[in-house]
Amino acid sequence: MTKPHNFSAGPGILPEEVLKQASQACINFDNMNLSLLEISHRSKNYEAVIEESQSIIKELFEVGNDYEVLYLGGGASLQFAMVPYNLLRENGTAAYVNTGVWASKAIKEAKIIGNTNVIASSEDKNFNYIPKGYAIPTNADYLHITSNNTIYGTQLKQFPKSPIPLVCDMSSDIFSRKINANDFTLIYAGAQKNMGPAGSTMVMVKKDALGKTGRKLLSMLDYQVHIKGGSMYNTPPVFPIYVTLLTLKWLKQNGGVAWIEKINQQKADLLYNEIDRNSLFFGTTTVEDRSNMNACFLTNKPELEPEFDKLWKEANISGIRGHRDVGGYRASMYNALPLASVQVLVDTMKEFEKKFA
Amino acid sequence: MTKPHNFSAGPGILPEEVLKQASQACINFDNMNLSLLEISHRSKNYEAVIEESQSIIKELFEVGNDYEVLYLGGGASLQFAMVPYNLLRENGTAAYVNTGVWASKAIKEAKIIGNTNVIASSEDKNFNYIPKGYAIPTNADYLHITSNNTIYGTQLKQFPKSPIPLVCDMSSDIFSRKINANDFTLIYAGAQKNMGPAGSTMVMVKKDALGKTGRKLLSMLDYQVHIKGGSMYNTPPVFPIYVTLLTLKWLKQNGGVAWIEKINQQKADLLYNEIDRNSLFFGTTTVEDRSNMNACFLTNKPELEPEFDKLWKEANISGIRGHRDVGGYRASMYNALPLASVQVLVDTMKEFEKKFA
Repeated sequence: MTKPHNFSAGPGILPEEVLKQASQACINFDNMNLSLLEISHRSKNYEAVIEESQSIIKELFEVGNDYEVLYLGGGASLQFAMVPYNLLRENGTAAYVNTGVWASKAIKEAKIIGNTNVIASSEDKNFNYIPKGYAIPTNADYLHITSNNTIYGTQLKQFPKSPIPLVCDMSSDIFSRKINANDFTLIYAGAQKNMGPAGSTMVMVKKDALGKTGRKLLSMLDYQVHIKGGSMYNTPPVFPIYVTLLTLKWLKQNGGVAWIEKINQQKADLLYNEIDRNSLFFGTTTVEDRSNMNACFLTNKPELEPEFDKLWKEANISGIRGHRDVGGYRASMYNALPLASVQVLVDTMKEFEKKFA
Repeated sequence: MTKPHNFSAGPGILPEEVLKQASQACINFDNMNLSLLEISHRSKNYEAVIEESQSIIKELFEVGNDYEVLYLGGGASLQFAMVPYNLLRENGTAAYVNTGVWASKAIKEAKIIGNTNVIASSEDKNFNYIPKGYAIPTNADYLHITSNNTIYGTQLKQFPKSPIPLVCDMSSDIFSRKINANDFTLIYAGAQKNMGPAGSTMVMVKKDALGKTGRKLLSMLDYQVHIKGGSMYNTPPVFPIYVTLLTLKWLKQNGGVAWIEKINQQKADLLYNEIDRNSLFFGTTTVEDRSNMNACFLTNKPELEPEFDKLWKEANISGIRGHRDVGGYRASMYNALPLASVQVLVDTMKEFEKKFA
C-alpha cells in the first residue's frame, strides 16, 4: 500500500525525511545511544535543539533580538488566554477581528480577562470572507487577528496597518508565505500544521510589550517567566519541539519561505482553477479571500457526494472531508503536501465530472 | 556501543519495547500508512488511543466513573495553577505541605489565586525529611501534598488521612506502588518519569469536586471544559499521549502496579543497602523517608568525586549527577529501569571503595 495523499486539516502532513529522522530519534538521539523520549531536557544535546530552533524561527521571520521565541504547551487555545492576560491592561481595551470559530474562541477568553471590543466580523455570512476597511481604535492595547481560517478556507491576503500592537494567530499558515514579521508585536501558532506535530505552540513576542498590565501573573501564563527560563521554565514538550526543529530545517534547507510560498501558490492555483472550471464544484468563500492553505468547496449535486467520496478514496486521498460548519470538502495544502498530491485530487475531480456531469 | 544505564531524573527511562513501538508509529501508525505525527486527533484510530489510555489509568488506580482522566499540556507546573484555580473558593483557604522546590512552586501559584496556608514544611533541613503529625484544618478547601520529591530523594510512605479533599502531585512516583486512589480528590502527574515522555500531564479528578469556586474560569484552565471535551477540547499532545498509552500497557501486561512495586523495592533495597554499607558513601535523607524512585547520596571524601565520576562513566552509567540543591549523586530508578542497571551502579560503588577507601 502506498502512502495516502494527506490533505488533513491538522495535525497535518509533515515531510517524509522529517518523519524518518523523528522515528530514528525515538531509538537513538544525536548519537547518545538513548532515545530522545528518555533524556533530560537539560542535557547539552537537547538544549542545542531549543536554541537552534529559536534561532531558525528568528531567521525565517527576519527579526532581531528585540523578539523572543518560546515553545509552550497547551496549544494555541492557551494563547487565546495568555495574550490578553499578558497584554491587556487592567483598565484597557483589546480589539479583535472575528473571522471564525478560532477567533471567536480567542475573543471569549479575552472577555473573561478584560474589556474586549470586536471591531469587525464576518459572522453574518458564516465567515466566508475577510472583513476589510474597519477602523482600528488607537487607544486599544492591541489588535488581534487570525491570518488563516482553517474551517472556512479564508486567508488575510494583506495585514492591516495597525497603529497599535498587532497580535496574530498564525496557526494554520505560518511560514507558508513571506510576511513582514517586524510589523507584529506577537505571533503565535500551534505547531501541528506547517511547523511540526501537535503538542507545542510557538510564540514570538516583542520583549518591550510585556510587563505592563498591572496584573499579578500566574507563572506558567507569564511570557516573561518563560523568556527568563529560556523556554525551559518547566519541562518543555521535548519531542514535539525536536520534530518542529526538523521541519524548520527542512524548510530552510530547501529555500525557506520564499521557496515554499511559490509552491504553495502553484498548489492553490491548480486546485482553485479546477474548482472554478469543474461544472460539479464551487468554492465556498469570496474569491479574493481564498486561503492557499485550506480550499473549501462543495458539489452542486449533493446527491452525488457518495460517488465522489468513492472516487477520492480509490485515488488514495485522505482527509478532505469538510468541517461540519461548512460541509462538503476541504483540501488542506500545508507546506509538506506535494504538488503531485494536488494533481491527484484535481484528476479525481475531473474524472468525477466526466462520469456524472 | 551498548545503551547506557539511564538513571536520568526526568524525562526518564522508558521501556525498550515502548521506544520501538513509538519509533514505528512515527512512520506508520496503526496500519494507517500515515505517521502518528500527521493525522487528525479526531480520527477513529487516535480517539481509541485517548479512550484506552483513560480506561487503563482508571483500572490501574481502581477507581470508578466518579473520576475523570485528562491529558493536558503545560506540565505539572500548569497544574500548580489549575488546582487552586478550580478548587479554591473565592473566600476559601487551601492547605499545603511544603516538601521541596516543586511543592514550593505549587504554593507560590496558589497564593496568587487565594488564601493559602502552609501547614507543614521540611524547609528547615533542606527538605531532607517528610513532615508528619501535622493538624489538617477541617475548614480548608483541600490539602495539597507531593508524594515524591525528586530533588531531595524523599517519599511519602504513608498518605495523611485527610478530612478535606486530598490533592497530590504524583509526577515522580505515579504507578510505582499501590495506593488507595479513592482517598484522593485529584491526582496529577507530568508524564515524563513513570508514564511516558515529556509533553503531557495526567490529571485524574473526582467530578463532584468541580464547579464550586464561584470563579469565572478561562476555558483552557477549566477542568470541566476539558472533561466535557473528552480531553480533546483542543488538539491534545498527540504523540506524548500515545507513548504514555504504550507505557501503561507495558505496565499492565507485565503485572501492573503490584508487579512493579516489588521490583522497585528490590532496586531501592539493593542501592540503599550499598549506600549504607559502603564506607565512602552516605545517604542525604532521613532513612524512613527515603524515596524508592530517587536515591540521593554523597561521598564523604568529596576530593575523590572525579575518581568516582570516571568509574561510573566507564561503566556506561548516565544521569546520576545530583541536583545542584543537594549535590553529589542521585540515582533515579523509575519503573522502566532494570534491576541489572542498579547492580552495575552498586558494583561500581564497590569498586570505588576497593580502590580508594
